[in-house]
Amino acid sequence: MDLSLQDFLSLPEAERVPYIKDHAILYAQQFDRESLDYHCRLADTCRKMHKTGEGADFLSSLLRHWTALNFFVQPSSRTFLSFNSAQSMLGMRRASVRDINISSMSKGETLTDSIRTFISYVDLVVMRHGDSDAGAVAYWIATKARKIVINGEERPIPIVSGGSGTKQHPTQSLLDIYTLEKSFEQIGGIDGKTIMLVGDLKRGRTVRSLSYLMKNYNGVELVFAAPEQYQMQDDILHFLDTHHVPWRMVDSLSAAVADVDAIYMTRIQDEWDDLAPGTHEAASDEFCFKLEHLRNMKPTACLLHPLPKRDEIEEAVDYADDDRVVYWRQERNGMWMRVAIIAKLFGVGEAILERA
Amino acid sequence: MDLSLQDFLSLPEAERVPYIKDHAILYAQQFDRESLDYHCRLADTCRKMHKTGEGADFLSSLLRHWTALNFFVQPSSRTFLSFNSAQSMLGMRRASVRDINISSMSKGETLTDSIRTFISYVDLVVMRHGDSDAGAVAYWIATKARKIVINGEERPIPIVSGGSGTKQHPTQSLLDIYTLEKSFEQIGGIDGKTIMLVGDLKRGRTVRSLSYLMKNYNGVELVFAAPEQYQMQDDILHFLDTHHVPWRMVDSLSAAVADVDAIYMTRIQDEWDDLAPGTHEAASDEFCFKLEHLRNMKPTACLLHPLPKRDEIEEAVDYADDDRVVYWRQERNGMWMRVAIIAKLFGVGEAILERA
Amino acid sequence: MDLSLQDFLSLPEAERVPYIKDHAILYAQQFDRESLDYHCRLADTCRKMHKTGEGADFLSSLLRHWTALNFFVQPSSRTFLSFNSAQSMLGMRRASVRDINISSMSKGETLTDSIRTFISYVDLVVMRHGDSDAGAVAYWIATKARKIVINGEERPIPIVSGGSGTKQHPTQSLLDIYTLEKSFEQIGGIDGKTIMLVGDLKRGRTVRSLSYLMKNYNGVELVFAAPEQYQMQDDILHFLDTHHVPWRMVDSLSAAVADVDAIYMTRIQDEWDDLAPGTHEAASDEFCFKLEHLRNMKPTACLLHPLPKRDEIEEAVDYADDDRVVYWRQERNGMWMRVAIIAKLFGVGEAILERA
Repeated sequence: MDLSLQDFLSLPEAERVPYIKDHAILYAQQFDRESLDYHCRLADTCRKMHKTGEGADFLSSLLRHWTALNFFVQPSSRTFLSFNSAQSMLGMRRASVRDINISSMSKGETLTDSIRTFISYVDLVVMRHGDSDAGAVAYWIATKARKIVINGEERPIPIVSGGSGTKQHPTQSLLDIYTLEKSFEQIGGIDGKTIMLVGDLKRGRTVRSLSYLMKNYNGVELVFAAPEQYQMQDDILHFLDTHHVPWRMVDSLSAAVADVDAIYMTRIQDEWDDLAPGTHEAASDEFCFKLEHLRNMKPTACLLHPLPKRDEIEEAVDYADDDRVVYWRQERNGMWMRVAIIAKLFGVGEAILERA
Repeated sequence: MDLSLQDFLSLPEAERVPYIKDHAILYAQQFDRESLDYHCRLADTCRKMHKTGEGADFLSSLLRHWTALNFFVQPSSRTFLSFNSAQSMLGMRRASVRDINISSMSKGETLTDSIRTFISYVDLVVMRHGDSDAGAVAYWIATKARKIVINGEERPIPIVSGGSGTKQHPTQSLLDIYTLEKSFEQIGGIDGKTIMLVGDLKRGRTVRSLSYLMKNYNGVELVFAAPEQYQMQDDILHFLDTHHVPWRMVDSLSAAVADVDAIYMTRIQDEWDDLAPGTHEAASDEFCFKLEHLRNMKPTACLLHPLPKRDEIEEAVDYADDDRVVYWRQERNGMWMRVAIIAKLFGVGEAILERA
Repeated sequence: MDLSLQDFLSLPEAERVPYIKDHAILYAQQFDRESLDYHCRLADTCRKMHKTGEGADFLSSLLRHWTALNFFVQPSSRTFLSFNSAQSMLGMRRASVRDINISSMSKGETLTDSIRTFISYVDLVVMRHGDSDAGAVAYWIATKARKIVINGEERPIPIVSGGSGTKQHPTQSLLDIYTLEKSFEQIGGIDGKTIMLVGDLKRGRTVRSLSYLMKNYNGVELVFAAPEQYQMQDDILHFLDTHHVPWRMVDSLSAAVADVDAIYMTRIQDEWDDLAPGTHEAASDEFCFKLEHLRNMKPTACLLHPLPKRDEIEEAVDYADDDRVVYWRQERNGMWMRVAIIAKLFGVGEAILERA
């Protein structure tokens, strides 16, 4: 990288992509259709391979000499645990930093020094940070620091975003794609489907990242169902227009529930507000998913949620024993997608596909 | 499970047992004599097997494809570390959640959703929780969620209590049994022995769980030595009466120290009181174990403590170099018992016994 | 050990050394020239061995049956992560205790009981503690507790200091030696070199430990550059005088930057002061390293820092792409040195050197 850190950060996300190559996973815009299909195929292959003892042994032999660090300075259960499990399935050694109060940042160390330090000891950094640019900073440092050799090529250690600020959550959007593809397996995949995104579309980084990916599919239409103050932001709408992805806004979930092929619920992200602890903003009733909505959904449709959820899905839906409720399976899909992402970054994707 | 969660929780512990089968470890009442003897034999076999390199390699190959989560939302050193070591001895992959502030519970996720999420990523949940029913909740969810296949049988992922509220600590009581059996190896085992329980019998979940198990032994007598306000509760006394286990109460440790075969000390559990930080209630002098008590004990007797302790055992006893002081060995026994418990749950107990 | 804990702690550090033998790493005074050279050779051998798949597999097979605990009750990134990585490179099982609020110490357990408990479950304790004597306490307990067998010899489980109070950081000083030796590889090693220590020499435990080690090298001269209130303490100056290591004090970094062979920067350790959170004492300008100093350094000289740093090194130096700036490599050297230290403690150092 011949840019200074300041010059790199001054670029908009899309213009950072060429500098990132396949050396980091920071933005949904890094993925084209071929790459999405490849990751889905690889995730599915790993999932099936792990069912046999020999397959599991093969997977866990692949990255046994590499060490991963999960550096999460915002709360996380799903992303943290699924990366942790994915790494151990590939045999990686693991460490975590989750509390900056027990790290040297409590002695005044800068984020850049901390990341450079991590790179001294580990070969992969997965990070969640409140600052939307933290991943880009880490990637820039990686290009200046200790290199590793993968398949004969010297390269910076991989940086993977596990959610950054309110902007992006690229690995979540890959697992969402994988879940949609699996749900639509019998009806032609994602192409041609109508997908409704519901809830806090303004600050929900998962729906932002997922929207970016929609340009890669043919004939997809997006429906945005959100209270006015939480509607999808102009930058995404502009992106969709530029890439000829049709979208419309509706003012309640009910308005479209019977017409769409997938419903993607989200939580009001009030941790970005200044609320007193313990209080939270309830999802307004028009944007809550109820048992009656399940009855109205198409028989081939599916209900997703990146989770955690609160009151935006009625409790009875959780244990409704209905195959269209896929958000719990979506979690496990996330683990397999993260196996695929890491395998690809460390150059063992082909070895896995060939063995299968 | 055909009961709703509410209906399951409305049952008393003893009536939950048939629903739990051997799919979870929640209550001491789940164990009969045969099962206790089996676990002790298995723990002892694992302990000896690990002494040789080949034995240790065999053990650590058994569960290498399974992942354990240690979910501890109350402080723990012993139980956490011994489960962690036991899991690694069996080759399990491991993760932990110890601080709900860095988990999605800090974003308002319910306990039920968190547990269901854990089940998406791991194959065993060991949990310590302040709510006595948390383990039962977790087991109920496991019956509704992702299944695993063990020895050809599909079953919910195992839930193991690592201490729940003030009520039970079933794996602690198994290791106590193992320690007593080993201490009484030359004198006929636990049958026919008199065991004194000392200290906070009201809120000490270990002595409650241990009392339940006494019904499985012949001719055991219990002596309860506690300040009046911390004496053993009526539900346990009633259980003992029903199962013809004789018991008596004494008003000081000295009153029976020379007559009993085992002394089981406990700490005043004042973390359940509303005390200012740093203050704690000293054990009253009549219920402290001193060097002079050690001199008065039977030559074949033993002194146990589930630990942590504070001032209820005089410091000089810790390093007295007397074989009757077994509480440090009791800790290590706990690790071997947890190896046995997990091995049994995952269907490899027989393979271990056959190899030995 | 035939001393009581009190008698052992009443000895000055140097007189504790004979009791420690090679069973613990607590003080820089434990190392003579032969031992330092051995550790450097072993670290370098491990570093090269890990580059090949077979070498990495060999290393990670060596200690696969042993369990390490990293018990850090003060903040740490580098020392914690490098020990964690070193342990996993040798195949060790690992656990950590980093927050006494989630341990039994929060229930009033003493440090001695906690350490004795750890020894029940693990075979190595690496510890960082604010109390300078905590390591000595742990070692004394280890001599009284469960033993392990290494190369046919029964011995206490190893205790390794990862930084203790303001006094010592012995493994840091070993990695500093390794870094200096590597930097001076082409010019005859450390013997005969002049080394400047800069910054908070009073409370910087790394410079204290490093100063002790200088007695093992021929013709080394030390230069102390520090504000008056942070100058090197009399106990170290006296030690140097006794061992005929010449030293001098200067009142600015510039005064000697062009003359010395190595510059070892340190941070003002104001965490030992009672400062309001977020404030910190800036390094005074005379003791900050700037790009102009880099220009004035000898071509064969090197710039070290134990890190973390704050403002005592100008940011432009970090990415100056100058081979004399070695503090990032110094971090990674620390990981290899910790591999060597643990390998030696567990008696596999010879096996590694013979295989190479």
